[in-house]
Amino acid sequence: MPRLRVHSFTISLDGYGAGPDQGVDTPLGAGGARLHEWVFETRTGREMIGETGGSEGVDDDFAARGFRRIGASIMGRNMFGPIRGDWGDERWTGWWGDDPPYHHPVFVLTHHARASVEMAGGTTFHFVTDGIESALERAREAAGDDDIRLGGGVATIQQYLRAGLVDELHVAIVPTFLWSGERLFDNIGDALDAYDCVELVSSPTVAHVRLALLRH
Amino acid sequence: MPRLRVHSFTISLDGYGAGPDQGVDTPLGAGGARLHEWVFETRTGREMIGETGGSEGVDDDFAARGFRRIGASIMGRNMFGPIRGDWGDERWTGWWGDDPPYHHPVFVLTHHARASVEMAGGTTFHFVTDGIESALERAREAAGDDDIRLGGGVATIQQYLRAGLVDELHVAIVPTFLWSGERLFDNIGDALDAYDCVELVSSPTVAHVRLALLRH
Repeated sequence: MPRLRVHSFTISLDGYGAGPDQGVDTPLGAGGARLHEWVFETRTGREMIGETGGSEGVDDDFAARGFRRIGASIMGRNMFGPIRGDWGDERWTGWWGDDPPYHHPVFVLTHHARASVEMAGGTTFHFVTDGIESALERAREAAGDDDIRLGGGVATIQQYLRAGLVDELHVAIVPTFLWSGERLFDNIGDALDAYDCVELVSSPTVAHVRLALLRH
Repeated sequence: MPRLRVHSFTISLDGYGAGPDQGVDTPLGAGGARLHEWVFETRTGREMIGETGGSEGVDDDFAARGFRRIGASIMGRNMFGPIRGDWGDERWTGWWGDDPPYHHPVFVLTHHARASVEMAGGTTFHFVTDGIESALERAREAAGDDDIRLGGGVATIQQYLRAGLVDELHVAIVPTFLWSGERLFDNIGDALDAYDCVELVSSPTVAHVRLALLRH
């Protein structure tokens, strides 16, 4: 059975996965872009945006794992774009240009129906209006023998955690502060008591924690 | 000038430095004892409680730094004991028995006056009723050429951080969850924007972050 995996989800030292006031110019909220700088310092992060170079080592290893054996992705609509409510003219096709760095089916959770959008490079965005279980089921079918990567944002990951559907959660902690926004480890009750920390390791700039659902 | 240093202050992955329902049997609140297990796995932690053995390495290095060149300590009264309000019969002399692991003057912040208590091994508890600056001033006089260690709890550290009086803050993050209690990085506004992360390193069980006040 394909597993649902979260990779490189980054939080500040005070626990925020996004800052306040998210919008077109600040998709991760005020100060939130700082969270992801580490990814773009790695070889994997640079490849993702069509560049060369970048670091190898711990951070790159973790970034790279998020692309290995992934056959489908799921994300919240706020990760897909800044539009709220109705999709309007449907010209918005994500933050990532014509050839998004997925190269597989991506299921976007939304309350507003929209036809699927086929992009270059193998990425197709599907819009799922009937809930997280439905999105997971469709992603499983699409993923074949591979796993499914669960993207953000915070609220989306929390929903899947509360439902006990996340198999593996890699959280990157960067030593910066956002002071407000959305905290990853809020609003999930004690759902993570069902997880074991299976890996804790740090580079000089990022601490990586990997949690895995206990199988009984 | 002696520096005010916080060492081995431990928080859960969801940011809590103490769990809910603190009391005589649970000085760190429900689940809070888990936070400090790592210290007692180290050689330094064992020495502190009169035992031998224990690990060397990253965790022990950090634990040991908290005892080096420290000439005085400051702590909140909740770290000193579970009694709230008036001191009553004054029989409570701390959690640590007759010979506490300080061996220097300890200044306890409280709203309730009490005579100083001299313990075995060089530890004397002084009770300071006129605020955090006063406690720091007295600790500086007592520390001589050495530094001052600021203990917990969360509220005490937050007070000193808000006042910009902490020179160095070592936070240990353990991959466990408390789900409620007191979060270290709440109620301090953006006070920590004046700090730089000068060290980030992890053992397989504890991530260590060291922040230092920027000197302009």
